Amino acid sequence: MAQFINEKEATVTEAIDGLLQASGGELARLDGYPHIRVVVRADWDKSKVALVSGGGSGHEPAHAGFVGKGMLTAAVCGDVFASPSVDAVLAGILAVTGPAGCLLIVKNYTGDRLNFGLAAERARAFGLKVNMVIVDDDIALPDLPQPRGVAGTLFVHKIAGALAESGEPLDKITSAAERVIAGTSTIGMSLDTCTVPGSPKENRIGAGKAELGLGIHGEAGVQQIAYQNARQAVAAVTEKLAKVMKSKPHVVLLNNLGGASVLEMSILANDLTQSDIGKNLKLIVGPASLMTSLDMRGFSVSVYAYSAEDQALLAAPCSPSAWPGCKAIKPVSVVELPDGLRPIQPIPSQHKDTAAFLTKCCQVLISAEADLNALDAKSGDGDTGSTLAGAARALIDALDRMPLADHTQLFRAIGQELSQTMGGSSGVLLAIFFTAAGDAASSGLGMIASLKEGLARMQKIGGAQIGDRTMVDALKPALDELEAKGLADAAVAARSGAAHTATITKAKAGRASYISAEQLDGHVDPGAEAVARLFEQLAT
Amino acid sequence: MAQFINEKEATVTEAIDGLLQASGGELARLDGYPHIRVVVRADWDKSKVALVSGGGSGHEPAHAGFVGKGMLTAAVCGDVFASPSVDAVLAGILAVTGPAGCLLIVKNYTGDRLNFGLAAERARAFGLKVNMVIVDDDIALPDLPQPRGVAGTLFVHKIAGALAESGEPLDKITSAAERVIAGTSTIGMSLDTCTVPGSPKENRIGAGKAELGLGIHGEAGVQQIAYQNARQAVAAVTEKLAKVMKSKPHVVLLNNLGGASVLEMSILANDLTQSDIGKNLKLIVGPASLMTSLDMRGFSVSVYAYSAEDQALLAAPCSPSAWPGCKAIKPVSVVELPDGLRPIQPIPSQHKDTAAFLTKCCQVLISAEADLNALDAKSGDGDTGSTLAGAARALIDALDRMPLADHTQLFRAIGQELSQTMGGSSGVLLAIFFTAAGDAASSGLGMIASLKEGLARMQKIGGAQIGDRTMVDALKPALDELEAKGLADAAVAARSGAAHTATITKAKAGRASYISAEQLDGHVDPGAEAVARLFEQLAT
Repeated sequence: MAQFINEKEATVTEAIDGLLQASGGELARLDGYPHIRVVVRADWDKSKVALVSGGGSGHEPAHAGFVGKGMLTAAVCGDVFASPSVDAVLAGILAVTGPAGCLLIVKNYTGDRLNFGLAAERARAFGLKVNMVIVDDDIALPDLPQPRGVAGTLFVHKIAGALAESGEPLDKITSAAERVIAGTSTIGMSLDTCTVPGSPKENRIGAGKAELGLGIHGEAGVQQIAYQNARQAVAAVTEKLAKVMKSKPHVVLLNNLGGASVLEMSILANDLTQSDIGKNLKLIVGPASLMTSLDMRGFSVSVYAYSAEDQALLAAPCSPSAWPGCKAIKPVSVVELPDGLRPIQPIPSQHKDTAAFLTKCCQVLISAEADLNALDAKSGDGDTGSTLAGAARALIDALDRMPLADHTQLFRAIGQELSQTMGGSSGVLLAIFFTAAGDAASSGLGMIASLKEGLARMQKIGGAQIGDRTMVDALKPALDELEAKGLADAAVAARSGAAHTATITKAKAGRASYISAEQLDGHVDPGAEAVARLFEQLAT
Repeated sequence: MAQFINEKEATVTEAIDGLLQASGGELARLDGYPHIRVVVRADWDKSKVALVSGGGSGHEPAHAGFVGKGMLTAAVCGDVFASPSVDAVLAGILAVTGPAGCLLIVKNYTGDRLNFGLAAERARAFGLKVNMVIVDDDIALPDLPQPRGVAGTLFVHKIAGALAESGEPLDKITSAAERVIAGTSTIGMSLDTCTVPGSPKENRIGAGKAELGLGIHGEAGVQQIAYQNARQAVAAVTEKLAKVMKSKPHVVLLNNLGGASVLEMSILANDLTQSDIGKNLKLIVGPASLMTSLDMRGFSVSVYAYSAEDQALLAAPCSPSAWPGCKAIKPVSVVELPDGLRPIQPIPSQHKDTAAFLTKCCQVLISAEADLNALDAKSGDGDTGSTLAGAARALIDALDRMPLADHTQLFRAIGQELSQTMGGSSGVLLAIFFTAAGDAASSGLGMIASLKEGLARMQKIGGAQIGDRTMVDALKPALDELEAKGLADAAVAARSGAAHTATITKAKAGRASYISAEQLDGHVDPGAEAVARLFEQLAT
């Protein structure tokens, strides 16, 4: 699978530069590319405790995307899935640490522990106050004495970040971070492996399988399980979490490992709230891409039994836009449907002439059925005649329910009837035509002017102009002539317009726009033909 | 490719419910599942102009994810890639439209135009003021009279949303929306097709190919091109955009079509600012997943020549967390490296006894090289002896640069030397040991206490406890005895601790933790052996 990268060696520096340029000036970086890749807050004045995190790249937005007011002060970026050097970490520490000191937030991997650890020693030799906490939230391997640090790290970044932003001292922030770490558990699941830049993709997870308890560096999960659906995936994850959770309110962080769609993540969120542990989940961060494993199609769930103070710190504003906020989980709020979805049925009324006129119109369309179908077979799927005839028959049947004596209401009633009985785009367009005409009539326009207004609205919605080879080519000139001269001239204009459509070999709207010029040449558009026949029969 | 969904038919409703529960109560939905899927602002009081958008699902976070203060009032959700029904749209309009009226923001697809169009007519029949704008920002097909609506729709949502939030009237909001639509152009590129829930994935795009000018419903792009890298992909896209852009400041929206990693998107952002159109890009939205095509590994770029008023509206705060903000594009800000990265070289000083002592220590390790390698071959890769001997030789060579007369500085200097000359984890750990010991000595502790402090720090970083089958098993009892009784007892304790490691068949830290019990049984840990030999030789 190809990826959107350039030279493999430049992957991390280019990504950092992209992040920085799009940060609105909130982020800067230390000099020293390519060895030193440290992102720092541009506005930092060392007046408060600095928070430094980082590690291998490939977990974006972590860690550089969480640098900003209220979260990290600096992020030290290694190569993809590789720890940054001691010098890089030291550079980060020295660049941001003032008299208030610095807390290093390190995920529990040997390389990170050692390199951040030695950098901390070196920084201390300069007289700086440097504490270090190690995040080990992964519960995939319960027996290992060194659980990995994964997405739960974000809880530490946010809670420590909010404390630091409010000016708390290093010791208090450190103990809060240790408390969060002790209380945080994470486990992940994936349907596919990730694509490491410049490396072939490992096809480890077979069809119908999922990996449970995986890390964030493409390492294999603790077990492969049969995959059924999202609900079962969440159940497999929450079963593990349930074993370590207390019967207390928890905040849950739902992390996209990189390749799951936003749609899928929302489904997983729903499954999570409905799961066995759902009743203990009161706050949520995400779903969002927070601690990814490149493009892995998977997710992880982190839980933490928060205190009241934690809740405020998790909700405190912060500037990194990658942080999605921490929100209360609430039941779905369902609002009653508004009135008016069932249209008010018009009061039926009788009007002999109108009934006769409408019946005649309908009969014209019914008798044209075969001819129109034949024409449509040249440019479409051959059902224009049947569609119109079917609508005409339904309209005749409905006449005694119609408000025949009230033309304004009649237009709307016809529109309503067509939208219910006539399928496809043409049904909706004619419904718009009559409904808009009724709208115009109710605002005081005359019959023809109302029909012209209906046509204008239909054209706006449908997008068809004169010359686009649609019914508009006949209907528009007919209505113009009807207003100016009368029905006979309207019929001539309709026929002329319809005839012209046979010369239009490039349709710009409607279904005929997908048909080649050769196929269209010499054939009248069936919609225009229907309009022409209607006016011609009415004029006789 | 499996996906995180459940029953295909429930995909959209479950995703909406997930979104709502994670919204902190900001969002609600109308009754009427499964036919009516309308997400509304929970706090809406109809006092301002309502903005209603929507269309097919599969574009998450669009459209429901952009409902909230300062953006949409309601989103009407169809099935995946299918327009919602007229009734659903009407329900949305009726639910949120008050006396100030409503603007429908519709992407230019026939189904959406018709269904939103007819719903608008029906709503008008209730006397509601309803305007409708049609977004047609796609420039993939320059000749088509009906360009598609794609990610540029977000500019309309945000600008109209900010105007509506500030109480502007419907006509002003409508004309602003039309102005934004007229000025917005978008084009996308993808390396792979998307996976439609419940359908097999189409493998249309071959290896080494990319599609340019694709839509957001899995439809094929206008052309397939050879794919080289991110830079060339951006160049292909910006070449098209350059043709429609004026020499004015533009805002750019960099949209993840769903399956690109966050890392890749940042690289694309960097390539975009460096591209031919880069000089005209002054503001940026994203990179982020805004208008996705499920899990498509692709991106789109939308540009709009904004006015000063637009800029303020784009930057105005809004509640949907899916909106990443609109930020100024700025050059990368590079901060000078801090002082202190090159450690201050200690001032060399002579001290005959110390030099002799250190030389003896080093010689012990050098002479143990073969034995330690042999031991390590049982539990590791057989290089412990060489690693230690190499470091010892380097230390002897460095003696005349060392501050031999100042023990505090000497500890640090040894740590510094080891971190530079000794590879691997053990080099870093010993560097931490000596550096931390120096730290302790400089704070006034005595020699042995300082070494014990160094050991504690090394254990904290390395994670090794007594019984973990590491050098700690010899070093810790030796330092304890050294403090309590003296060197002879320390040597006995070191040997006893080392001997004990041969009985530890489950290593919990270090490389031996990956070796089976049978392989470990009866072999002393080489690090512990080294410590034991050192103390034994010093005691003689």
